[in-house]
Amino acid sequence: MLKTALIGAGRIGQVHAANIANNPNSELTAITDIFVENANKLADIYRSKVLSLEEILADKSIEAVVIASATDTHSDLIERAAQAGKAVFCEKPIDLDSERVKRCLKVVQETNAKLMIGFNRRFDPDFCALQQRYQSGALGAAEVLQITSRDPSPPPVEYIKVSGGLFRDMSIHDLDMARYILQEDPVAVSASASCIVDAAIGECGDVDTALITLEFPSGALVSISNSRRTTYGYDQRIELHAEKGMLQADNVRESNIIETTNDGVNSAKAEYFFLERYMPAYGAEWNHFTQAVLNDTQFSCTAADGAKALVMAELAHKALTTGQKQVFDWEALLK
Amino acid sequence: MLKTALIGAGRIGQVHAANIANNPNSELTAITDIFVENANKLADIYRSKVLSLEEILADKSIEAVVIASATDTHSDLIERAAQAGKAVFCEKPIDLDSERVKRCLKVVQETNAKLMIGFNRRFDPDFCALQQRYQSGALGAAEVLQITSRDPSPPPVEYIKVSGGLFRDMSIHDLDMARYILQEDPVAVSASASCIVDAAIGECGDVDTALITLEFPSGALVSISNSRRTTYGYDQRIELHAEKGMLQADNVRESNIIETTNDGVNSAKAEYFFLERYMPAYGAEWNHFTQAVLNDTQFSCTAADGAKALVMAELAHKALTTGQKQVFDWEALLK
Amino acid sequence: MLKTALIGAGRIGQVHAANIANNPNSELTAITDIFVENANKLADIYRSKVLSLEEILADKSIEAVVIASATDTHSDLIERAAQAGKAVFCEKPIDLDSERVKRCLKVVQETNAKLMIGFNRRFDPDFCALQQRYQSGALGAAEVLQITSRDPSPPPVEYIKVSGGLFRDMSIHDLDMARYILQEDPVAVSASASCIVDAAIGECGDVDTALITLEFPSGALVSISNSRRTTYGYDQRIELHAEKGMLQADNVRESNIIETTNDGVNSAKAEYFFLERYMPAYGAEWNHFTQAVLNDTQFSCTAADGAKALVMAELAHKALTTGQKQVFDWEALLK
Amino acid sequence: MLKTALIGAGRIGQVHAANIANNPNSELTAITDIFVENANKLADIYRSKVLSLEEILADKSIEAVVIASATDTHSDLIERAAQAGKAVFCEKPIDLDSERVKRCLKVVQETNAKLMIGFNRRFDPDFCALQQRYQSGALGAAEVLQITSRDPSPPPVEYIKVSGGLFRDMSIHDLDMARYILQEDPVAVSASASCIVDAAIGECGDVDTALITLEFPSGALVSISNSRRTTYGYDQRIELHAEKGMLQADNVRESNIIETTNDGVNSAKAEYFFLERYMPAYGAEWNHFTQAVLNDTQFSCTAADGAKALVMAELAHKALTTGQKQVFDWEALLK
Repeated sequence: MLKTALIGAGRIGQVHAANIANNPNSELTAITDIFVENANKLADIYRSKVLSLEEILADKSIEAVVIASATDTHSDLIERAAQAGKAVFCEKPIDLDSERVKRCLKVVQETNAKLMIGFNRRFDPDFCALQQRYQSGALGAAEVLQITSRDPSPPPVEYIKVSGGLFRDMSIHDLDMARYILQEDPVAVSASASCIVDAAIGECGDVDTALITLEFPSGALVSISNSRRTTYGYDQRIELHAEKGMLQADNVRESNIIETTNDGVNSAKAEYFFLERYMPAYGAEWNHFTQAVLNDTQFSCTAADGAKALVMAELAHKALTTGQKQVFDWEALLK
Repeated sequence: MLKTALIGAGRIGQVHAANIANNPNSELTAITDIFVENANKLADIYRSKVLSLEEILADKSIEAVVIASATDTHSDLIERAAQAGKAVFCEKPIDLDSERVKRCLKVVQETNAKLMIGFNRRFDPDFCALQQRYQSGALGAAEVLQITSRDPSPPPVEYIKVSGGLFRDMSIHDLDMARYILQEDPVAVSASASCIVDAAIGECGDVDTALITLEFPSGALVSISNSRRTTYGYDQRIELHAEKGMLQADNVRESNIIETTNDGVNSAKAEYFFLERYMPAYGAEWNHFTQAVLNDTQFSCTAADGAKALVMAELAHKALTTGQKQVFDWEALLK
Repeated sequence: MLKTALIGAGRIGQVHAANIANNPNSELTAITDIFVENANKLADIYRSKVLSLEEILADKSIEAVVIASATDTHSDLIERAAQAGKAVFCEKPIDLDSERVKRCLKVVQETNAKLMIGFNRRFDPDFCALQQRYQSGALGAAEVLQITSRDPSPPPVEYIKVSGGLFRDMSIHDLDMARYILQEDPVAVSASASCIVDAAIGECGDVDTALITLEFPSGALVSISNSRRTTYGYDQRIELHAEKGMLQADNVRESNIIETTNDGVNSAKAEYFFLERYMPAYGAEWNHFTQAVLNDTQFSCTAADGAKALVMAELAHKALTTGQKQVFDWEALLK
Repeated sequence: MLKTALIGAGRIGQVHAANIANNPNSELTAITDIFVENANKLADIYRSKVLSLEEILADKSIEAVVIASATDTHSDLIERAAQAGKAVFCEKPIDLDSERVKRCLKVVQETNAKLMIGFNRRFDPDFCALQQRYQSGALGAAEVLQITSRDPSPPPVEYIKVSGGLFRDMSIHDLDMARYILQEDPVAVSASASCIVDAAIGECGDVDTALITLEFPSGALVSISNSRRTTYGYDQRIELHAEKGMLQADNVRESNIIETTNDGVNSAKAEYFFLERYMPAYGAEWNHFTQAVLNDTQFSCTAADGAKALVMAELAHKALTTGQKQVFDWEALLK
């Protein structure tokens, strides 16, 4: 039983609380939040207790922490938890600035801490099955990977302002997915983008619609299609063309009901957003963390994966602003 | 919090145990099973206790019982629990003999006990959505209802021998589904059947493949297609033709992965069997029971529904053996 | 080149005219119709000539006739054409009365004439592929065959009055399809039906919605679902459950466009009616006729098939009116 | 009746011959081919006659010519036919060199000739329906257009050598499709490509797998995915994300048969190649040409469209070789 403390009791924190409490490998030992009311509510539901951050870090019986607080607190909390000897699960990203990420990871390395970054989509049953089917070799080498990732509706402008921009906030999941599926690091990236969904996003200097193209050493090409707005739910699809065929992960639908009338054949649309679509993924992700910590095995989603995805987002942005394809010098980038 | 005791800790009892324990409206207070080891195992997992049947019935703090024991114990247990003042949830059927069912329901009536019969499919999210969409009236009156219900593989012959036969064991779910969707009682039934899946079933005097046709007062017709074997998972589909269009509930698939090769476009097959397919239904069913008991409202699935489905199965069998369409004289049948 | 005369230049006659003219094996030598204007129009388009029926029968150079006139003229025309030494293609049915059919077929036999009956659906590319896949044996023995056949909207009452009733007019196609797919003659039939689509049909003593169940010697069961009205196009589907899996022929859609909005995922409905859906089937049917006549090989769809389908429709009707499953004594029925 | 001569009796010439002969608006008056045997064969089938190119150009009764000869003859033939006063239908491309195209179009302009370029996909019923649905405005402004266009298998190396390269040979269809759907000219293009399907293609200095990204003045973005090899047929799909929803044109399948076994749910793959998939498009394309010439209306697919698609292919290639996004200065490019 992994005694676990939750830092951050907001929307995603609530998801983690349920998974920690319901997983037979873990126990929700303590909760903290800068809004103590949020922490109290969750503690009531799961018969846990509310502690301060300092108390959590000082409590030797607490073996793991889940960091689900605001993005700008992640790197500090990772460092403090690592120094306190905890195993750390942190929501993506480590930080919006890759220099800060490097400093943070140095601390993790020095303390020999266990750190897993929450790229939840790697644990989606469909994406996972697609990746394993491809990695089995049955379809031969990858040629073209198409990732479609579109949110149902744009977030508030206040969120946009602190989000780090479309690439670091949203595309980062898809950039990681490309590496996860292909099990390669890219050699080049280019990008095109527009602000056509919401003018307010453009006023923040950001874009809301983008196409990112990646090139990989094997010759495989990747196209990522992102948008802040679909109107028809959370569009999360993957299509992989390989030597001997195509693998697709289609959207998860809200139901299996089909209504046929004079207007056509109407079936259910995609589940609304990440809390619906990726709920099983969050559970599988947490289960992976508990097993890896308890059995002292490698995480399938490491701090280095977090760092690489951020670097890819940054170079995609540079490609967008310069119009020039950017080449990855990984040694220099990660130094 | 409904303090609940579970009677029967076998396969389906385990499903109920999890639902009772995880539902915020209920508590798994006690477990009993004629194999005490089964009861102990479940009690360990859910931090519950093992009691004898007598202790459960005598314990005034226990408000509800879930009967998940062998079919031939159902009617006795319902009577005893009703007399002990418990709210009762019982797996279908009440009994394989409709005369025994009538005597049992008389006791339920006299004791004024709450009794819900577990027709789990009424709580399947898709079937439920289809029924509600039809009952909304948007598509007009029902014309033809096609229910496909096929098991992945035949049960052991030992089970067949005590099952009551295909109609009372398997078709009973679909006969109830027809009443649930149309919200009518049928006027006539006819049937055709074969033993072509497993000769051993025929040696028990049973059939393994059947088509049942029902006629309803509104003029709506129902076709039920049953088989003990699919080879491709649990085939559970409903298709309703109404005045203004068709509603279909398609199978729930094992994944959303599509693999396209020179052999064609291959997508996932239906989930394997009832424990996979109807897991959400069991949870919704239990939630309905707890809410109806706690709020003192009607069950959507009553003892009378259980009795009617059994009568339908019996007359379907008579239609099969005589070759003559059987007419339902409901007043006489339920007297 | 099969020199062919067309008898009947109405709606279905026009389909045959195009197929005769465009097929490299045949020539549209002459056309006749009791409305000479119809014949003239077709002759203009296909550079053919208009003759009287007598001239056609007397013209030794005309090798084949296509009978596409009113149903009540079929048996007389077959006899006269057979006696004139023509190969005959006749639209179904031979006659609405099976005694008349027997007399007609006696003439055909005595004259040793070639007669093919137009069960067009046997030549539908999808149904044909399904039948061939099943008959290949790859999926083992048939268990349950479900045929859905629903017209987009009811015909005029004037048509209903002379149609012979739902079973002889519409179900006859599906009764033939069951024999075509299973390559067996049934042993028993039962039926249920309603008039719920159009009260005027009921006033003619007919029904508009029906379920027919057939039993076959192999133990295979067949369910036929018929309706005079869908609202969503021509619903023509077949589903065959066999020992090792299921084969389905889905509807042919009007397009491959999918529109996804907040209202759901909308795809195209089935093609509107038989002229759209079965156009390729009519072409393939005619091609089969020309090849069989020119090469002196068997038709895949014989006069006996026409007679059997009619007998099945008649016994289905008797099952409906008596409520008693009807058994086929084929020897007596076809004597 | 448009008296038409066909220049080139190869594979695509045969398609045009059938369409010219079967269309009620046109007559296949003459055929010419440098291999006179090819011309003779077609003339036999369609009861046409074989003439020399000079005879065709000199024959004043011939109103239109269809140019279906080798690519490197197109621009010369267009000029000669234009000078001879014929209406010209020419297969794409006008020429592989955009400077040659400009000179050719100058002749067309000076002679005031009618010239239509055969971008057959504009006449595909599905793509056409998608374009019209989008242009109806019902879904609001376009945001992202994804065009997938993949051939079943790579052509012979001899073809690759004279093809002009992947972009001018294959992508040109998709570049035109982007303009057709959006009804805009792009502002910028970038590209990534690999040779991973067939090393022999790389030895010719060409690529076989590519992603092209286009930016449009409205802010709409386009991703084109091309490959010389699928293994599963001709993959021709379009997906358009607009303000209020998504429109998709899915592949045309070989049948509507679905086989469900323990291996999954297997449906038919895409039709094999362009002769199967685009046969209806070729017929609609020819019909459009005849109507526009006979009614003296505009072609929906002009010489300028041909010139623009070629320029787009050329700049895509420049973007690929330089790694720099290329901006379209349309005035300069088309001068």
